[in-house]
Formats: sequence, C-alpha cells, structure tokens
Amino acid sequence: MAKKAVVLLSGGADSATALACARRDGFDPCALTIDYGQRHRAELAMAEKQAAHFDAKHLLLFADLRPIGGSALTADIDVPEGRSVSEMAHGIPVTYVPARNTIFLSLALGWAESLGAGDVYIGVNALDYSGYPDCRPEYIAAFEKMARLATKMGVEGKQAIKIHTPLIGMTKAEIFRLGDSLGVDFSLTHSCYSPTQDGKACGRCDSCLIRLKGFNEAGIEDPLPYAVRK
Amino acid sequence: MAKKAVVLLSGGADSATALACARRDGFDPCALTIDYGQRHRAELAMAEKQAAHFDAKHLLLFADLRPIGGSALTADIDVPEGRSVSEMAHGIPVTYVPARNTIFLSLALGWAESLGAGDVYIGVNALDYSGYPDCRPEYIAAFEKMARLATKMGVEGKQAIKIHTPLIGMTKAEIFRLGDSLGVDFSLTHSCYSPTQDGKACGRCDSCLIRLKGFNEAGIEDPLPYAVRK
Repeated sequence: MAKKAVVLLSGGADSATALACARRDGFDPCALTIDYGQRHRAELAMAEKQAAHFDAKHLLLFADLRPIGGSALTADIDVPEGRSVSEMAHGIPVTYVPARNTIFLSLALGWAESLGAGDVYIGVNALDYSGYPDCRPEYIAAFEKMARLATKMGVEGKQAIKIHTPLIGMTKAEIFRLGDSLGVDFSLTHSCYSPTQDGKACGRCDSCLIRLKGFNEAGIEDPLPYAVRK
Repeated sequence: MAKKAVVLLSGGADSATALACARRDGFDPCALTIDYGQRHRAELAMAEKQAAHFDAKHLLLFADLRPIGGSALTADIDVPEGRSVSEMAHGIPVTYVPARNTIFLSLALGWAESLGAGDVYIGVNALDYSGYPDCRPEYIAAFEKMARLATKMGVEGKQAIKIHTPLIGMTKAEIFRLGDSLGVDFSLTHSCYSPTQDGKACGRCDSCLIRLKGFNEAGIEDPLPYAVRK
C-alpha cells in the first residue's frame, strides 16, 4: 500500500499540479482544501473535482479567516487589476492573506499526523510568485524544522516530516507543462481572484494575468473561459 | 497608546494568567479564542468573560478541527480519568490534538499581522504540562523563527515578532499564585476535559487533577464547583 501524503489543494492550477506530483512520487494523496471564507468560492468546487480526477481522498475544512481581516481576498478591499507582471514583482500585494500558508500548512500537519503521514505537499512557487513571503524556500525550511518539534510523530521520531514543494523553483510555464504531462485537467482549476457573476475568470487580476502569460509561454491553450482576454 | 499584543485565550486558567501578564507587561491585549469543535465547550464562554474582565478586545474564530480527528478532545475517544500526575508525565496522551498549538499560533500570527502587532502571548508551560510536544521552549523558538520568515511584517523588518511564553518555566502552583496576584478571576476559568451536564468540572480528568493539585500547592481555594473532589 502506498504511503499517504497530505496535499494542500486550493482549486488553482499550481496545487492541482502539486497533487499530480504526489501521485507521480508514488504517494496515496489525501487532498486538503481550506474554506477560509475566500471571495473566490469557485475554487472550492474545482478542488473537489480535481481530487476526484486524481482519485484522491478529499477533506474540506472550514477555518474562517475573514474576522482576521487585512486582505483583499477575504475583506472588502479592491483587488488590483490590469497590472503588468513586472509591476507585481515589487512589494507584497493587498491580496496577501496574513500568515495564510502558515495556517494552511499547520492544518495540513495536523491532518497528516492524524493519518500517520509525515509528507505534506504545497504548490508554492518562488519565481513568478507575486510577492508572498510565505512562498520562499527559507520559509518552508523553517516551517519543516518547527513541524518536527511540534508533533508527536516528530518528537517520537517514528515518522520523518517533509514539506514537499515540487514547484518552488519553476516558472508558471514550466508548472503548466509539468501539470499537462502528469494529467492535470486545467479545465478543473480556477485561479481568478474576482470571477464574474456567470463564473468566468476576470482576465485582469494579478492571478489571471500570471496564469494567461504562463499558458502562453508554455504553448498550451488555457481551457478556462475569460471575461477579458488580451 | 499601548502596543497591541494578541493573547491566545482558551478559557482555561493558564491562558487567563497569560492575558494578565500581557496587561502587566504594558500591552493592550487582544484576546483570540479558537472554537475548534472542542467537546469542552464551556471554556468558550469563560474566555469571553475573562476577556471582558481584563477589558480586552475579544475575537472568537471558528476553525473546525473535528474532521482532522486523532484526539479525545474532538473525537469520540474516552478521556482518561483518575490518573496520578506521575502517570501523566509519561508519553503523549490521547487528549493531544495534532498540531494544535501550531494551528493556534498561526491564527494568532495572522490576526497580529492584521492588527499591526508583532507580539503574541501563549500560556503554555513545560513543567506540569501533561506531555504535549508543542509546549516546549525549543518548539516555541522554532515557531518564532519561522514566523519572522512567514509574514510581511517579518520580512519587511518593520515589526519585531516575539512569541511570549510567560508561564513556560512555572509549576501550576506558581501560575495560580501569579494569576491571583495579577487579578485573574479563577471563577471565570474552565479546565475540565469532561464537564458534567450541569456544568461542574469532573474532578477526575488529567486537567482537573493537575488544576486541583496546583491550587492545593499554591494555598489558594479553587472557586470552581467539582462533581468529585478528593
């Protein structure tokens, strides 16, 4: 029987590729999706479909980050539109959710320990990463070290603890090519921060613009419908 | 205006004392209580009352840890009863919730960042601590280091990040004496893992036994009603 690994699955294209990587690496992936009260709810349904696509166990956990505030993804702050990728590269954007990856990795760690698994996958990437501090390799290394001290499995030494970041050094184009080669169905992914009422990606937020540029560079057709597509 | 600090407030006696320490240290305390689906719900109401007692802002956040499983505090596993404190000292008990303090500190870190605060208080203690790995100083140090890499405030260096553990080296008796001297109202705290239907502490679970022993050694009367009290 394959070893279990918990995979953080947001419903976006990167985490779908991370899920495919866990399968490639021989794990039995257990996909964890966090409903944190995000405005872009469409990704939750996509996560469920993507988990089914890869025949992975799926857990949807509710952890309400809205009262914490401080982000355009959960609070009533405007999501920026129409920025160039080089503009995005400067500073940390308003779509940053305070401590989000730390909260998500902690929840993943808790479920992993309960499952008897020491492996966690997260689809962060540090290249085309839109300025989030909690996507960098030094952050992941520090989390891993902390996790080994935090848990019963870590302290008792029965289980190695490893945070896998298969995409961390890749460009978006490389991620999409990898996902494509590993069988990700990109029509079952959602990346937009501000989808339209009829469920189309806006085509103007940072996330859409990075995604479209990546697909373009990868030479793969993005199967999603967009409200605006340059 | 006093600097803000986030204080993790469970509703128990230790975290109430940590809240009093944040006041003593000159902070404007913002108390964070996590409703994680714990069986001992009575502590949530106590947390609210204790925050009001110290005139602290209070946030109750819902993060459902029940689907994660693996603990007698959230799942249908029997809570141990009638153990001696020396029996408790061996191994990690079934009341351990996988990665709980990591999840709680992560949520506290998120709220702290949103408030513009770099200080977080947690009432862990490593002496009479009932065997939890995530109560030890080396774990807290690793979390702090990770938190500095995880956050916008840490990366931009605008805000020092400090996890305060004022009780970490204290016995329960010392904690109760300190809390008493700083104005904690222990009638507004709740420690029992298995309270009776009429709201009394059971007097037989690890948490009750540690508490009663601590009050006894401190020479302070525990104001709570108990179902059994030896």
